[in-house]
Amino acid sequence: MQKKKTGNPGIKRHPSPLKYWCRDYTGTCHTFEKSLEMARAFHGYPAPGLILGLRMVSLAMAHLPEKTLFDAVSETRSCLPDAVQILTLCTIGNNWLKIMDSGRYALALYDKTTGKGVRIGIDSQEVKKWAALFAWLYKTKAKHDQDSAALYRDIQSAADHVLKTACIAIHPRYLTKISKGPIDTCPGCEEAFPVKHGTVCRVCQGETPYREPKFSRMEKPAERSPAVKRVSDMRQDEKSSRRK
Amino acid sequence: MQKKKTGNPGIKRHPSPLKYWCRDYTGTCHTFEKSLEMARAFHGYPAPGLILGLRMVSLAMAHLPEKTLFDAVSETRSCLPDAVQILTLCTIGNNWLKIMDSGRYALALYDKTTGKGVRIGIDSQEVKKWAALFAWLYKTKAKHDQDSAALYRDIQSAADHVLKTACIAIHPRYLTKISKGPIDTCPGCEEAFPVKHGTVCRVCQGETPYREPKFSRMEKPAERSPAVKRVSDMRQDEKSSRRK
Repeated sequence: MQKKKTGNPGIKRHPSPLKYWCRDYTGTCHTFEKSLEMARAFHGYPAPGLILGLRMVSLAMAHLPEKTLFDAVSETRSCLPDAVQILTLCTIGNNWLKIMDSGRYALALYDKTTGKGVRIGIDSQEVKKWAALFAWLYKTKAKHDQDSAALYRDIQSAADHVLKTACIAIHPRYLTKISKGPIDTCPGCEEAFPVKHGTVCRVCQGETPYREPKFSRMEKPAERSPAVKRVSDMRQDEKSSRRK
Repeated sequence: MQKKKTGNPGIKRHPSPLKYWCRDYTGTCHTFEKSLEMARAFHGYPAPGLILGLRMVSLAMAHLPEKTLFDAVSETRSCLPDAVQILTLCTIGNNWLKIMDSGRYALALYDKTTGKGVRIGIDSQEVKKWAALFAWLYKTKAKHDQDSAALYRDIQSAADHVLKTACIAIHPRYLTKISKGPIDTCPGCEEAFPVKHGTVCRVCQGETPYREPKFSRMEKPAERSPAVKRVSDMRQDEKSSRRK
C-alpha cells in the first residue's frame, strides 16, 4: 500500500502567467492549451470555472510550505472540485477533498494535521475590470449569449489579478475521520450497511435515489415482482418481441 | 465548447476477467495491474474498494445500451465515486456524478434523459466465499490486520461473481438541473454568492468550514484585524523573526 504522496513536492514558485497556466502536485507545469485539454479529458468540456479553478489550485499550492500533506475544501460544487481533483491527489472518493457549499467560488488547501492553510477566492472588485469574466461570475448573460472566446481571453489575462489569498485555519471537524462503525447485512435488501444507520439500511427506510423503493431492492429471481426486471430479462424481452 | 461525449462508445462486451480488469468510457481495456496504477495516480493509493469499483463501473457500462449519454449515482462516499470519475466523464464537479450516501457499496449509471439504467451492488451471500473480501466489506478486521495480498487476490478472483445487477429508474429529482439563480456580491465578505442563500452568503451567516468566521473574510489590509494574516504577512513575520 502506497502512502499518501507529498502534497506539493518541488513547488516553489507559482507558474508564470505568460508561459504556464497551472502546476500539478508533482510540480509539472501545464500551458493554458494543455489545461483546456486536461479539463476536457476529465470533466468532459473545458468549463470556464474549471480553467480558472486550475489557476486557483496552483496558486494555493504555491502558498503552502513545501512537503505539506494537505487536504482540500471546495466552497462550491460547481467545477472547482474537479480542478482540485485534476491537479492534486485530493479526491471526493478518498475524502481528502471535502465540499462545503457556501456558494462562493473559492477553495482552501490546508495541512491535514494542523488544519492551517490558504484560501483562494475571487476578488469581486477586480473582476469588474474583465467584462466577460464578470458576466460569467455574476451570470448577467444567458449561457448561449456568452462570448466564449472573450471569456477564455479574460480568464487568461486576468489570471491571479482577480484572485485573493488569505491564511485560514480549517474547522477541527474537517480534521477528524468519522468511522463507519460496525457493518451488518440489511434484513431488507440483504446488502452490507453501517449499523449506525438503523435496523435496516437507509434505502429500506425509504431514502432512495430510485423511483420506486422496489427498484433498489435486489430481490432473488424467485421472489421478484414482475415490475423489477434484470438486464438479462430485458434482453430476453427484446428478443421475444422481435420474434413476435 | 465540446459536447458531452458518448458515455460508452464501442463498449459491447464486459472485459474478460482473465485478461482485462476494467474498461473506460472510450472502450479502452485495462489490466488489473494497470488498474492499480490508475488508482494510485488519481486516488493516491490502490484502495481495495476502488479496484473493485472499477470493475463495478465497467460492468454497469457494459449493460447500458450503446451510445447512452449517462449520469451516475454512487450510494457511498468511500472510494466508489473515484471509480466512476476514473472510467467515465461523470465527475463531482460537472454534476454528472451524484452521491446519495445510502451506506451500501453500490452505484447506478442511468440515461440522463429517461433516468433508466442499471445498478451494480455487492451480493452479500456470494461474498462469504472470499474470506479476505468478506473481512474487508464487513470490517471484521482492523486495517493493519488485513492481509492485503489475499484481499487483492480475492477481488481479482471474485470479480463479477460477487456483483449483482439490476435495472433501475432514477428518481426524477436527479434529472432536473437546479439553477443557482441570480448572483450578487455579499455585503459581508464582498464575494459573489447566490442571492437565494439569503441577504448575506452562508459563511457570513455563520456556516463556515473555517475555525473562526473572520478567517473566511477576505478583509482589505486597512480593515483587517491583527488576527487575520495573509501569506505575505506570514513570510514578512518569518523574515523579521529571523533577523531578531
